[in-house]
Amino acid sequence: MSEGVVWPARSRLRPLGGDRVTIHDGFWADRLRTNRERTVPHGFAQLRRAGTLDNLRLAAGATGDYRASADSGGAVLPFLDSDVYKWLEAVGWELGTAPDAALWAAADEAIEVVAAAQRPDGYVNSFVQVLRDGEPYRDLAWGHELYCVGHLVQAGIAWHRALGDDRLLRIAVRAVDHAGAALGAGGKDGIDGHPGIEMALVELGRVCGEPRYLALAARMLDLRGHGLLGEGRFGPAYWQDHAPVREAPEVAGHSVRQLYLDCGAVDVAAEQDDEDLLAAVQRRWNDMVRTRRYLTGALGSRHRDEAFGDPYELPPDRAYAETCAAIASVMLAWRLLLSTGEPGYADDIERAMYNGVLSGLSRSGTEFFYVNPLHRRTRRTYESDGHGRRRPWQACACCPPNLMRLLSSWRQYLATGDETGIQLHQYATAAIRTDEVELSVRTGYPWDGRIDVEVVRSAAEPWTLSLRVPGWCRDARLSVAGEEPAQVATGYVHRTRAWQPGDQVTLDLALAVRRTEPDPRVDAVRGCVAFERGPIVYCVESVDLPAGFDVEDVRWDPDREAVAVPRPDLGDEVVGIDVPVEPARTAPLVPYYSWANRGAIGMRVWLPR
Amino acid sequence: MSEGVVWPARSRLRPLGGDRVTIHDGFWADRLRTNRERTVPHGFAQLRRAGTLDNLRLAAGATGDYRASADSGGAVLPFLDSDVYKWLEAVGWELGTAPDAALWAAADEAIEVVAAAQRPDGYVNSFVQVLRDGEPYRDLAWGHELYCVGHLVQAGIAWHRALGDDRLLRIAVRAVDHAGAALGAGGKDGIDGHPGIEMALVELGRVCGEPRYLALAARMLDLRGHGLLGEGRFGPAYWQDHAPVREAPEVAGHSVRQLYLDCGAVDVAAEQDDEDLLAAVQRRWNDMVRTRRYLTGALGSRHRDEAFGDPYELPPDRAYAETCAAIASVMLAWRLLLSTGEPGYADDIERAMYNGVLSGLSRSGTEFFYVNPLHRRTRRTYESDGHGRRRPWQACACCPPNLMRLLSSWRQYLATGDETGIQLHQYATAAIRTDEVELSVRTGYPWDGRIDVEVVRSAAEPWTLSLRVPGWCRDARLSVAGEEPAQVATGYVHRTRAWQPGDQVTLDLALAVRRTEPDPRVDAVRGCVAFERGPIVYCVESVDLPAGFDVEDVRWDPDREAVAVPRPDLGDEVVGIDVPVEPARTAPLVPYYSWANRGAIGMRVWLPR
Repeated sequence: MSEGVVWPARSRLRPLGGDRVTIHDGFWADRLRTNRERTVPHGFAQLRRAGTLDNLRLAAGATGDYRASADSGGAVLPFLDSDVYKWLEAVGWELGTAPDAALWAAADEAIEVVAAAQRPDGYVNSFVQVLRDGEPYRDLAWGHELYCVGHLVQAGIAWHRALGDDRLLRIAVRAVDHAGAALGAGGKDGIDGHPGIEMALVELGRVCGEPRYLALAARMLDLRGHGLLGEGRFGPAYWQDHAPVREAPEVAGHSVRQLYLDCGAVDVAAEQDDEDLLAAVQRRWNDMVRTRRYLTGALGSRHRDEAFGDPYELPPDRAYAETCAAIASVMLAWRLLLSTGEPGYADDIERAMYNGVLSGLSRSGTEFFYVNPLHRRTRRTYESDGHGRRRPWQACACCPPNLMRLLSSWRQYLATGDETGIQLHQYATAAIRTDEVELSVRTGYPWDGRIDVEVVRSAAEPWTLSLRVPGWCRDARLSVAGEEPAQVATGYVHRTRAWQPGDQVTLDLALAVRRTEPDPRVDAVRGCVAFERGPIVYCVESVDLPAGFDVEDVRWDPDREAVAVPRPDLGDEVVGIDVPVEPARTAPLVPYYSWANRGAIGMRVWLPR
Repeated sequence: MSEGVVWPARSRLRPLGGDRVTIHDGFWADRLRTNRERTVPHGFAQLRRAGTLDNLRLAAGATGDYRASADSGGAVLPFLDSDVYKWLEAVGWELGTAPDAALWAAADEAIEVVAAAQRPDGYVNSFVQVLRDGEPYRDLAWGHELYCVGHLVQAGIAWHRALGDDRLLRIAVRAVDHAGAALGAGGKDGIDGHPGIEMALVELGRVCGEPRYLALAARMLDLRGHGLLGEGRFGPAYWQDHAPVREAPEVAGHSVRQLYLDCGAVDVAAEQDDEDLLAAVQRRWNDMVRTRRYLTGALGSRHRDEAFGDPYELPPDRAYAETCAAIASVMLAWRLLLSTGEPGYADDIERAMYNGVLSGLSRSGTEFFYVNPLHRRTRRTYESDGHGRRRPWQACACCPPNLMRLLSSWRQYLATGDETGIQLHQYATAAIRTDEVELSVRTGYPWDGRIDVEVVRSAAEPWTLSLRVPGWCRDARLSVAGEEPAQVATGYVHRTRAWQPGDQVTLDLALAVRRTEPDPRVDAVRGCVAFERGPIVYCVESVDLPAGFDVEDVRWDPDREAVAVPRPDLGDEVVGIDVPVEPARTAPLVPYYSWANRGAIGMRVWLPR
């Protein structure tokens, strides 16, 4: 039993498993505690309040009204079951960390509802069972039936791997087998308008050792890109049906769909040793990072179809930057990291997590952004997008439980192993164990750049400790077991020796304030600069400016220096940046992820000169 | 019988009526001929092809499938009847200009279909009669029932005023009386989610001399802004229900809805001598022009809800800039011009017509843009918005027949009268008549700035000829009856005398190439410049650049001069601008309205330095 969201049979790097990592203290410990104690319980209350659980009860035979209306315009959302599954996945990882009687009871209630809703033939989808005629897979383009099954599978795997509790897994297997009978080889050619089931199928195959699940995932990948889904409202690229998965040169369409699809592609590639498929995903990823990613790691510049825009179409104010897209990028970068061992993917995870992902969650842990712009004007007319204030839940509530399950499994992303040793990718005060080795990491990261690693237990033979030096770092020094600190380059620094208990390794990452110029092809921020320090992107909020001086008035003064300053008002050890602006003022910048926690008026990341 | 889209009982300026103006030659004559000979007949063919006429036949009792699905996502558009009405309005104005047997026959067919669809109680709406249960006014927020009635009324008025044919007007009166019985004073408090009926009701009151129509319009204005429509998908500002019409300080929400609403407000204000209501609209207009209008006169920067953005949120690439919004701005500016006599409103009409309106129509007259961006990248992934190529019709086909009816009535916008004389607002080679006066205007405008006005017939008493000197003009000279040319200021230049037949007036507007700097608060085009000449906004198209030199590569060189050059390839007398760009090249700019007629790859209006 290994607690992992992804557990490839073969890969360049191997997950350690969440049960091998304990985050004790510091930045992430605070956030994981909030997630466990506030966010996840809040999620259950909201699933009850919104009717999401009751919808499944209706499918099980209860009477009442189905509740899925996004608004008075009458759009009915077919995918709300997935919110229950994502929440259950989060609870699975949480209960794997430590018991919690209330969470167990809530999860039991939800699992029983799902079990009762499942038909004898294995099919379970409250929308089709209650609001439609019960005939499965009739609207694969928009119906999200397989997407929901995918999340059910992921929840089942979490409970299986973290707790050895297979109630959900059995439900999931029956649901998958129902889909496989209809859509597997020899059945109807069908793919879901919203990818997601592909990666779930691969993982289910890993759990069950059943080749048919991998085959179904591979079949769905192969079927995509040939027009099966039709033109739809936004053209076939919206759901990545415009070009085969192996051929599409660039990310396109709905951001979350593209990234979930590519997660499944990496998973299939890993199981089938398919270098071409892996290369296609890497090509898309690299192009995306270069041409379509916001500084915050956010993705998707179009509201209309929740889509990537054209290359360098990165408006800060109208950024869509869905929280789920940043989360999906972490999921995909993790798979690419495992498959390739390349440090850039860990850098990408770091950028997304500290900025575009965390901005989706309030400091309280109970309010959520769906959209994460990089600029919000002080003078506004109205809030049709709801950005500016986080909300306790959303009619389309995909992001909140997605945040929960990512944070509940975040410890899994810190370290990996391979035949040479252990790799540390993300830094937190934590204990990291393998069968033979135990490491104790202490750090004030991301506010302080010093990371102390102590070898608590070790194998007798020499092995290699690898530490990631982030790509943003211009001055990194490593000292090992009392040696003089040596300057090290970005990427992984490797040290091989016969480690002894008590050996100390210190990595010191200089956290200078960095001024970032945009790519000149990004029209929307021409003539602007942004400020970063370590992995943190900063912004100015109007709440920190004197009256009558709006974020629109801020003009960076290049003749004076920006300096890091303590911001204890924003949390323990938090560092802000005071930026000189004209005329003769200072704009106090705060971490982007922390914005809109003290009232939300104006905010901007990119500052005009 | 006076051919006018708007005919206030009292106003600062009086429409002359379309029957008093004949455009003979030049820029507008070409476009009006294309509209009459190509666009309007094409519209009828498309209404047949798309099923829009057949939907009304279904309401009349025919059998078949209702056709209103915008896409395979299943969104069903409830407002397609209005496309028939807008087309009929265009035909009414066209037949008032000159007979055309084919147009008459097509219109007869459409009128008979509408007449057959109307229920004995007066109600007519194919969507509600065929796809819903026939119960009227149950979904005022999204159903567009009153919006459709408004367009039916406008069509009826066009046929009444242009032709004395009252078949449509009788249908419209019965439909309005049905709505009035349900929603008038003492009835249900109800307003339409899409304004439009208000201005139609006022005009119907003017035609029929029935105060109850004005009262119903005023009632609907008063009811708006108090939350009757609910939150909707985009918040109450989307349909201007967030603040009372007399109080809302700024335009907000869906651009076309706001502008149509304010048209109705000006009309009610004109009939009721309501200075406060007029002032509220003027305040919104002036703020809109200053903070939310694109250089092309286009309006609406958000795709998601077809909305005005925040102030200075004017991205050129993601401009929504719906053709209908530019058209609506012409309708509203015309009403404000009649009410106030202020020349700025005529300037606004000119900017919209030559740029943001005309860009919606192909040179062929049979293809249409819904969205009119000011920048289209050379490298793009996919065309989810369809911008880049005009289409023969659209699933949501509001813009094509809106263009038709505007062009068919465009002659009405050229001149007005008042107790002092005649005012010329827009310039074209045309004959302009009143009971006592006839003027002959000759001009090569907008390519040539000289406008010759000859008095053909005149009253015996002195009267005042007023000519608009556009706000963009930095050197204008006027000579009257052989006098020395005198420099004149922008705004209206007035000349009062006892005009004699044969008197010549020449207005000479210098058409220098102008370099336009954006407002520094428009983040999206910081550091860019645009080029204009006369009323024309220019753009660079990739089709005019050498291979390997994309519109993204264009950098304006301030050290060399931009010069006007003939572009006969784009039409008679068309003038382009050659702009120096780095390194040592020239970018040949073309009129913005003409883009995407020679293949559409890249285009941009704002050029980086």
